[in-house]
Amino acid sequence: MEKLTPVSFKNVNIKDGFWKRRMDINEKVTIFSVRDRFRDTGRFEAFKFNWKEDSDVPKPHIFWDSDVAKWMESAAYIIAKNPNSELQAELEELISLMKKNQCEDGYFNIFHTVVQSENRFMIRDNHELYCLGHFIEAAVAYYMATGKENLINIVDKYIDLVIRIFCVDKSAAFMTPGHEEIELALIRLYRLKKDKKYLDLAMFFINERGVREEQLTSWSNSSYNQSHIPVRQQKEAMGHCVRACYLYSAMADAARETDDSELLEACKNLFEDIVNKKMYISGGIGSSHHGEAFTVAYDLPNDTAYAETCASIALMMFADRMKDIVLDSRYADIVEREIYNGIISGISLDGKAFFYENPLEIDLCDRYRHTSVINANERLPITQRQEVFSCSCCPPNMTRFIATIGEHIFSTDENSLYVHQFIPCNADFNGIKVEVSTEYPSKGNVRISVSGAKGKSVYIRIPGWCKKFEASENYEICGGYAKFFVDEDAIELEINIPIIPRFYASSSFVRADAGKLALMCGPVLYCAEQIDNDVKISDIRLDTKVKPEIEFNSFFGCNILKMKAYKTKDSQSLYIPLDEFSEEETSVTLIPYFGFANRGESDMAVWLKK
Amino acid sequence: MEKLTPVSFKNVNIKDGFWKRRMDINEKVTIFSVRDRFRDTGRFEAFKFNWKEDSDVPKPHIFWDSDVAKWMESAAYIIAKNPNSELQAELEELISLMKKNQCEDGYFNIFHTVVQSENRFMIRDNHELYCLGHFIEAAVAYYMATGKENLINIVDKYIDLVIRIFCVDKSAAFMTPGHEEIELALIRLYRLKKDKKYLDLAMFFINERGVREEQLTSWSNSSYNQSHIPVRQQKEAMGHCVRACYLYSAMADAARETDDSELLEACKNLFEDIVNKKMYISGGIGSSHHGEAFTVAYDLPNDTAYAETCASIALMMFADRMKDIVLDSRYADIVEREIYNGIISGISLDGKAFFYENPLEIDLCDRYRHTSVINANERLPITQRQEVFSCSCCPPNMTRFIATIGEHIFSTDENSLYVHQFIPCNADFNGIKVEVSTEYPSKGNVRISVSGAKGKSVYIRIPGWCKKFEASENYEICGGYAKFFVDEDAIELEINIPIIPRFYASSSFVRADAGKLALMCGPVLYCAEQIDNDVKISDIRLDTKVKPEIEFNSFFGCNILKMKAYKTKDSQSLYIPLDEFSEEETSVTLIPYFGFANRGESDMAVWLKK
Repeated sequence: MEKLTPVSFKNVNIKDGFWKRRMDINEKVTIFSVRDRFRDTGRFEAFKFNWKEDSDVPKPHIFWDSDVAKWMESAAYIIAKNPNSELQAELEELISLMKKNQCEDGYFNIFHTVVQSENRFMIRDNHELYCLGHFIEAAVAYYMATGKENLINIVDKYIDLVIRIFCVDKSAAFMTPGHEEIELALIRLYRLKKDKKYLDLAMFFINERGVREEQLTSWSNSSYNQSHIPVRQQKEAMGHCVRACYLYSAMADAARETDDSELLEACKNLFEDIVNKKMYISGGIGSSHHGEAFTVAYDLPNDTAYAETCASIALMMFADRMKDIVLDSRYADIVEREIYNGIISGISLDGKAFFYENPLEIDLCDRYRHTSVINANERLPITQRQEVFSCSCCPPNMTRFIATIGEHIFSTDENSLYVHQFIPCNADFNGIKVEVSTEYPSKGNVRISVSGAKGKSVYIRIPGWCKKFEASENYEICGGYAKFFVDEDAIELEINIPIIPRFYASSSFVRADAGKLALMCGPVLYCAEQIDNDVKISDIRLDTKVKPEIEFNSFFGCNILKMKAYKTKDSQSLYIPLDEFSEEETSVTLIPYFGFANRGESDMAVWLKK
Repeated sequence: MEKLTPVSFKNVNIKDGFWKRRMDINEKVTIFSVRDRFRDTGRFEAFKFNWKEDSDVPKPHIFWDSDVAKWMESAAYIIAKNPNSELQAELEELISLMKKNQCEDGYFNIFHTVVQSENRFMIRDNHELYCLGHFIEAAVAYYMATGKENLINIVDKYIDLVIRIFCVDKSAAFMTPGHEEIELALIRLYRLKKDKKYLDLAMFFINERGVREEQLTSWSNSSYNQSHIPVRQQKEAMGHCVRACYLYSAMADAARETDDSELLEACKNLFEDIVNKKMYISGGIGSSHHGEAFTVAYDLPNDTAYAETCASIALMMFADRMKDIVLDSRYADIVEREIYNGIISGISLDGKAFFYENPLEIDLCDRYRHTSVINANERLPITQRQEVFSCSCCPPNMTRFIATIGEHIFSTDENSLYVHQFIPCNADFNGIKVEVSTEYPSKGNVRISVSGAKGKSVYIRIPGWCKKFEASENYEICGGYAKFFVDEDAIELEINIPIIPRFYASSSFVRADAGKLALMCGPVLYCAEQIDNDVKISDIRLDTKVKPEIEFNSFFGCNILKMKAYKTKDSQSLYIPLDEFSEEETSVTLIPYFGFANRGESDMAVWLKK
């Protein structure tokens, strides 16, 4: 097992380009916008524990703690890079409310304390351990940002209670959480504080999962939360996608911390099952809104895709952990697929609105425009981003993801530096200085200057989609990375990863994409929106013989594509004999998939006729 | 307005071939099979009016009367051609029960008399007038078969009551029926008995529809039962498809009987709207199970198609009426499309099982095979024919349709004989004798011998799909018919309608069929079933350059097609760069669409990749 260490985002300064813009918006707009929405809905107020039946205060929900915890974690990451007294004061206020309202025995959960105190640790699906997990991550983040232990002390006390209840007294009504998260959080805290009790508790939850029958959740089947068999025996990704990938992330962490090759093998199998059978080309996972879950292999409908933003973040987290324990560039490839597509499609370009679900096709030219012909029980397709949702897990997941984008770029081990993602930055760690200059993902030239690494190797990921990687120095290929040897004090590598549009077909097993193609250019997936095109989206047939034109577009901060296409010649008939069927030339404009639904409601499709 | 008179099925003897087989099965198997199912479910027993709360007798449903009435009508048609004492005794038994249980004032409705007598004519959607309509049709049929007026007398008495309540006292809680049917039935009875009160009542219901606000049905919008605007203003086919086409059929009848050109114009507009925008290539109508209804133009999803068998029968009835008032072969073309596709797909080849819905695609290789991943609220696709349904309108609609297939072949007017459909038969009417010999729809040679028509013209429909109609005599083209002049006492016409496979594309507005083709051969639509093909159905790409081979298949009683096709070369990847994507040759077997789901559960598709 490899054991690369990711370079913290704290040591990395994003200079400019695609991600700098996102980080600026995150720091200036989104973090406050999410805070305001959380205030409006009563999530912050809830920390005062002042809800009572018949009070005016909104009734807390079981996952409100976790929403705010992720917001706290995000704010901590932001102040870790740029001190901000407003955010810091907000965090201190929340932490002091937590301290004030923490139960004597350490328990802290807003919903259960004020709404259902009788049900403490009685209902497996009530997210108590999930919420604690997010508070732990917030505590780790706040400590990293400020060196302050106040939040860590709160969660530590709570964790001691959890250890007593679950591992000693065994008095809870269930053995393992209904929604995984605490496992990976505990391992993060273990790495920070080196206290083995955290790792032991994480391993307890991981090892106990699926060993015995447990309370079923509302979805009434044990695979929904990956409790159908012990985790080491799991080979097929099943159930709720976020739960699944949070668990798999913890399993990868646990494999590394405990040198457990069986766990590692399970992680590899689960990863392969996802990326070879259950993942949209956007990186989205979750083919059905029912249970926000994986369904079955190759069931990847585009218009009813669930592909939750949080699920893409979770799969990215899993892949990102795998990249540091298995030297195989396919893991960082998936990180790349997610960060440019499945994840950031979940936030509007102005940073104010979100998609919980990320469909790969929207067609409104049909029954959905006509409320009189749809069934009240019929699920309407998602077509517009929203500022608030009742289940608001994705917005603060997005803010913490964007704030820490720098964390995914580099790893190190004793002898090497690894460059996984191509993001312009300066980094300084372990005596090594790196500067990356590039206009990626719009252009493929990348200049990487490294100093202080004499005698080490530099591994640079060759994206799996890149057929013609060029470099200014000799290299050998190792696990999909170009491996350069640094024999001087400073080295400057010029690489080129040609950003050329590429057409993709789906496996023949995917019914939804039969006879269709998708376009990627660099790591970015494209889609056609009706707003840019005269031809009905479903009638566009791509001309694959002529190369699409690439054009940088500042609205999207990324290339758009224009290309020749065909459309059906107008006909009065509903059914046209093939010998009377004809097409005429047209053109199509394609925009980055992540940018869809930023200019009003519009039909959209990723997969277009071949 | 033309006024052709259809030649009664009583004057037509089907000799052999496709329809003779169907009629034999109908007469020997289906009529009894439906009767047995109706007995099992208590529908016959219900005529004894012996249901009481807490009795063992099954509780009647609002439409049970109509189910049995259609069975009675079917049985009458069968005995009209071949006396059968068992069926006749059954009919007499039912009629005597009706007579015995008819209310003094003429009312007859099982559900309302025994279950909800307080609600007589109070609830518009309770199908009372619909049930009466079907009894009227049964009475007409029984009179035609036997010359007996017993059932006519019962319905006549009931009609008098309806006239009093609706037209004189106006004491019903609604003006027009929630489910149309009585209108066309009354006009049939008017034509038989020449009593104008029947026509007047029909015209009352037609003219009052949509004039004022009425009780809404359970689908809570007035277009659901075509009550949104007066019928003469209707241009778009809306709402429940069976209700719609029963109404449109009555409107066509009414236009003819009252020389109402405004009604005729509405009929033409509605017909065009259906066939140009809302009809599956199978002739199926009703894109959504929600309301069993038309949705919006070009919304024609294949896998969730409702395309109720009764709706195809209803559209056929409408088109068949139109063919006799407008000389345009497109009407009889639609009759042909329905009888070889949309209608008979609704009955199994052995005549024992039925489809209520007729999807154009079945894909079970997906979530639907895995009950653990589907939502309890999700509607499962129909995949197998059933012997019984709770809502059993289609089976007896099928039996009456098949028993009277002979009715659609010929029409006459003073100077001409019209041949609309190509079915081998002998016919004798108005001193004219016709013999048709053909193996249609499997072969296109048709020999038509006519005697007793000297000085008249013979019009023979040139199917709209036929590009190369050949005839042994000279003809001119008139309204899409080949018009031959008969100048001798007997004429023998040899025509040829080449039965050659034809590929069809859909209008660019139909998203569901984008990039796909369907195959027809003669009037018969084809589909691929997984059971005949190794390649996954959705991966089959047709080779349109090589002509499909035609082979007669006795199981289907029709040609099947075999042709070259391509499939994707196996790949481990979920997404395949186009330059690595390759196909290999394969072959595909296509069967008549009407024959799908006769050999167990199997994936199926009408539209295949181009």
